[in-house]
Amino acid sequence: MSNLFNIADVFAPASDEPIIQSLLDTDMYKFTMGQFINTYDDWADTETTFSLTVRSDDVRLAEVIPPAQLREQLDAARDLRFQPSELAYLRGLPLDGGRLFGDAYIDFLSDFRLPEYDLEVTDDGRFDLSFSGPWKEVTYWETIALPIISELYYYSLFVGLYGRMLERTLSTVEELRLYDLTFADFGTRRRHSFQHQRQVLDILAEQLPKQYIGTSNVYLAKQQGSSNPIGTNAHELPMIAANLTEHDDPEEVRRSQYEVVKRWHEIYPELSVLLPDTFGTSQFLENAPAWMAEDCQGVRLDSKDPDVATEEVISWWQDHGVDPQDRTLIPSDGLTPTRVNNLYRQHGHKVGTYTFGIGTNLTNNCAGVWPRTHDPGYEPFSVVIKVTEAAGKKTVKLSDNPEKAQGGERAEWFKDIFGTSGRTKQKLTV
Amino acid sequence: MSNLFNIADVFAPASDEPIIQSLLDTDMYKFTMGQFINTYDDWADTETTFSLTVRSDDVRLAEVIPPAQLREQLDAARDLRFQPSELAYLRGLPLDGGRLFGDAYIDFLSDFRLPEYDLEVTDDGRFDLSFSGPWKEVTYWETIALPIISELYYYSLFVGLYGRMLERTLSTVEELRLYDLTFADFGTRRRHSFQHQRQVLDILAEQLPKQYIGTSNVYLAKQQGSSNPIGTNAHELPMIAANLTEHDDPEEVRRSQYEVVKRWHEIYPELSVLLPDTFGTSQFLENAPAWMAEDCQGVRLDSKDPDVATEEVISWWQDHGVDPQDRTLIPSDGLTPTRVNNLYRQHGHKVGTYTFGIGTNLTNNCAGVWPRTHDPGYEPFSVVIKVTEAAGKKTVKLSDNPEKAQGGERAEWFKDIFGTSGRTKQKLTV
Repeated sequence: MSNLFNIADVFAPASDEPIIQSLLDTDMYKFTMGQFINTYDDWADTETTFSLTVRSDDVRLAEVIPPAQLREQLDAARDLRFQPSELAYLRGLPLDGGRLFGDAYIDFLSDFRLPEYDLEVTDDGRFDLSFSGPWKEVTYWETIALPIISELYYYSLFVGLYGRMLERTLSTVEELRLYDLTFADFGTRRRHSFQHQRQVLDILAEQLPKQYIGTSNVYLAKQQGSSNPIGTNAHELPMIAANLTEHDDPEEVRRSQYEVVKRWHEIYPELSVLLPDTFGTSQFLENAPAWMAEDCQGVRLDSKDPDVATEEVISWWQDHGVDPQDRTLIPSDGLTPTRVNNLYRQHGHKVGTYTFGIGTNLTNNCAGVWPRTHDPGYEPFSVVIKVTEAAGKKTVKLSDNPEKAQGGERAEWFKDIFGTSGRTKQKLTV
Repeated sequence: MSNLFNIADVFAPASDEPIIQSLLDTDMYKFTMGQFINTYDDWADTETTFSLTVRSDDVRLAEVIPPAQLREQLDAARDLRFQPSELAYLRGLPLDGGRLFGDAYIDFLSDFRLPEYDLEVTDDGRFDLSFSGPWKEVTYWETIALPIISELYYYSLFVGLYGRMLERTLSTVEELRLYDLTFADFGTRRRHSFQHQRQVLDILAEQLPKQYIGTSNVYLAKQQGSSNPIGTNAHELPMIAANLTEHDDPEEVRRSQYEVVKRWHEIYPELSVLLPDTFGTSQFLENAPAWMAEDCQGVRLDSKDPDVATEEVISWWQDHGVDPQDRTLIPSDGLTPTRVNNLYRQHGHKVGTYTFGIGTNLTNNCAGVWPRTHDPGYEPFSVVIKVTEAAGKKTVKLSDNPEKAQGGERAEWFKDIFGTSGRTKQKLTV
């Protein structure tokens, strides 16, 4: 794992400590000049102002650095004093056989603290930062404030987004708290990182113990301990099953989607959650054997607009004399907390359990938290690993959303078999 | 320091360890489906291929993730086996009073390892990644490989640049090693971070102990111990001195730049390094008292093109009968290693000591290491804190480079006093 590099080695002092930890963390010429300035009273007490100038016009510091953070760091620098060991070091620096700094200057430094600063944020996102006072005091700010600004800037640009991702997780918690809905984490596959997923799930378990019903991640469920891992089946089952029919008989291909369910139900009668959208939800429900409506506990909605799919499945149950209040619906496709709330408000009362699988927006909530950059490469992107071949033939997925379809030419033939009723193009976010 | 957040909490396992540390770090349905697939021999052994698809066309993974890193992580996942405690956990998961997973499946998992993968990089910067083999084995790759890809991608985007900054530091070392030149670090003010500066200086001290003569940073010089901090004076001295003349008499203003040097030389005869460019180098040298050429040890070149300034100062010394071989010249303005080498090759032999102050390109060498983004906000930017007012008047700097000038209207009056001979606009990098 040779090329990776630990960022903790680049940004520290622990990143929540003061950036400037010593008044010696500055350029030497401030001291040679400092002693020089102190030598002449008429110079030492001159009223001066030092000001920040960003010469790069397109860099607007206040759009990147939170002003409160800059204040905290400047205030922390004002709390610093020269330590005895630091004064001893300066006192000991040689100059041509003698000492570089005389006692008068060392005495001055031993009482020194940085003077006050003036900080304002302009309307166009810049800092108006200046330091006014006697030259002999104000001069030291330059090479203290500049590295503070630099480090805060790059920290915010390169690292601060993790703080913002965390803040967003806390907002998600507040938003999901509004309704009495339940949800599971399905975000393993596109998580930002293992640690971020773990942190998000820890927050959910602590903040929403009744609403967060668990994660699909087995390792994290085992670690978290409060609920067993969640999951049933995925599209690869009907996709591969369709390729295992003999002689590619159209009727057999069509029947294969139900054969999978039949076999599944034999093995896991208690886990009978249908995933009807592989070749289109409408054709699946229309032609499904009655026992599937009667015996299967729930349906996962993974590519059709869930407002539409919810009504469609409810009608299907009702057509088979099944009370939706005894059944479960699980929307799980690209959900955001807001979308989850809206769906629950709209449909929650219509079925026994209306619960959600939330993925990327929980575990990779980095979209838009990056300052300045709107490059799509900095958003969560749509990536999948899917079965593409089985038994020597291309596999096909039609999906309710043609954007998720796959299978090339063979898909055209599948469209003839399954039809395209109820399929609607929707933009893929993840 | 409330808003900051430690990135080490987001990217770990320590970032040089395998991302996937357990075969349980995957979605639950892979196991429910896995047992299902194993139940039917005709399905279990079906030859399948699973393939990576990035649906976001503008995301080219191989431009961001180093292929060797992806291989290392995939190989590390192949080294994993189910641990006894993990098998016990799976064996213990309940289903409606009984067990979810039967002994046959647990036995299968106890011998399981991920099968081989095929990885190629396409000419347009994408990964061609696929997994082929019996369905019962290949199916597990999907939810292992996807989080590996996600984490490597975001790690590289958000953190990997620090590895590249370090690699660049090592290149800088190799480049500076080519000639027998010496240099000091002047990069405190625009450093990327304290830790990065410290790391760079540690590398320089170890790799170039004879060429790296020290840093201007007092704290780091004290820590490093091998040389005393380096520095003399800066533009604020003549800028403020010019405002301390009585009645703003033009002749007095002009003389003030020499008065500063005179006072400085009285206090620090051993540190007599001239900084002649505050109001223009040409006028400074032309009108300087002869003793300054004779008694001052060196000149720092901080805004004029150093090719030009070097010749100008050498001529000035020669005009005063001073042998340049007894003197020091210190270019210090926006230098890169390449520029330093070129200057040294061109001029190194002409003066006794031709040494360099290198700043931002040592301590904030992040330009261009960022994948995808060419936003100027991700480059080092030009920022200064300068004295802007003294003794109730605006301060003025004319500089040899008008891009560095300041002082507004009062600068116009200073131009009348000092003239503008030898000033040439040059693009500011930092």
